[in-house]
Amino acid sequence: MSRTLEVTDRTRVRRRANRASYDRAVIDPILDEALVCHVAFPNPGGAPAVIPTTFVRVDDTIYIHGAAASHMLRTMASGVEISVAVTLLDALVLARTAFHHSVNYRSVVLFGRATLVEDRALKLATLAALLDKVVPGRSAGCRAPDAAELDATKVLALAIEEGAAKIRAAPPLADEGPDAALPYWAGVVPFHVVRGAPTTAPDCSLPPPPTAGPSRP
Amino acid sequence: MSRTLEVTDRTRVRRRANRASYDRAVIDPILDEALVCHVAFPNPGGAPAVIPTTFVRVDDTIYIHGAAASHMLRTMASGVEISVAVTLLDALVLARTAFHHSVNYRSVVLFGRATLVEDRALKLATLAALLDKVVPGRSAGCRAPDAAELDATKVLALAIEEGAAKIRAAPPLADEGPDAALPYWAGVVPFHVVRGAPTTAPDCSLPPPPTAGPSRP
Repeated sequence: MSRTLEVTDRTRVRRRANRASYDRAVIDPILDEALVCHVAFPNPGGAPAVIPTTFVRVDDTIYIHGAAASHMLRTMASGVEISVAVTLLDALVLARTAFHHSVNYRSVVLFGRATLVEDRALKLATLAALLDKVVPGRSAGCRAPDAAELDATKVLALAIEEGAAKIRAAPPLADEGPDAALPYWAGVVPFHVVRGAPTTAPDCSLPPPPTAGPSRP
Repeated sequence: MSRTLEVTDRTRVRRRANRASYDRAVIDPILDEALVCHVAFPNPGGAPAVIPTTFVRVDDTIYIHGAAASHMLRTMASGVEISVAVTLLDALVLARTAFHHSVNYRSVVLFGRATLVEDRALKLATLAALLDKVVPGRSAGCRAPDAAELDATKVLALAIEEGAAKIRAAPPLADEGPDAALPYWAGVVPFHVVRGAPTTAPDCSLPPPPTAGPSRP
């Protein structure tokens, strides 16, 4: 099986094409690190709407879920074309000139039509995969959805077929000529997302699972 | 002047309306904390596209910039309707039941038509505001754009007129009945975005500005 997505007219990265990749070995780790994606879909009348939501990748598909009555999920399930962006902001890039300032990032944009997941076993498996993505082992550390909860939950699937990653991971572009002598600092300031100390719910007397706990870069 | 946005058909939050706000005193701090927004705009043919980009709010407007040749900016400048989402993921919300798992977040979605900023002084001011947003004082700590750089940069403005914030900031919903006795931890795991130690560019021998340096929650 090919592990590289076919380039299409709307996924061909034209600006800074050297930052682009269609390789699943590049795309998948970005999808697996990010907890939130942004879904663009047409509103009635055609103007686009964009909404953040959690998601999980399993094999060649990303899954998005929510309340069965959700407007976004109903619209997605109708088969309209959507676009999904996943973005990890890695660092500020500061240069001697305002013009060369930038950010380091890893992003993926996908296109396609989502389909409703009707199979109950697959619904349960994708919801468990999402829990285990955010806290390893969590799906075995809580009660699984019962029949009524599963009915109240809609799961949508989008195949990873059309899309691209775009990555910047570099120092600032070199300032040249007189700019190189400007008395301003140039470099990279990284961002790290860390988990702080858990707060136990008022009605709970158990200790938090270690996988939920604080992490430092 | 009203500090509350008028609710429209597409900004009325229907699901979990108690999480919604149209108050600029709620919306603006979210716009000011986030460095990245996601812009949805129609591709040729009408299917939506969504792209991440940095932005800055100044008064009643958000500004987005990029290369003058950017496809997204050209499309935005044509006056099509767009939607912009800004999302801060604050915490994981873990419950005894899979169904009650959630996330705490603060988000804003805006709708409207962007306009091209032609005024050079305003272009310079918004680019400086963005630098000062990411690193306080940075616009005075680097060389401002010269005429050619300003020509190569497109700045788009979107008025903060139609939109809504949505916020969840709470412990898990209480599990009830037999669920309340389940032997699983329930609580909140916060995320913090911190700045790590700066890496100075290979061709620079100055120390980093203190405002760019490490921060801890």
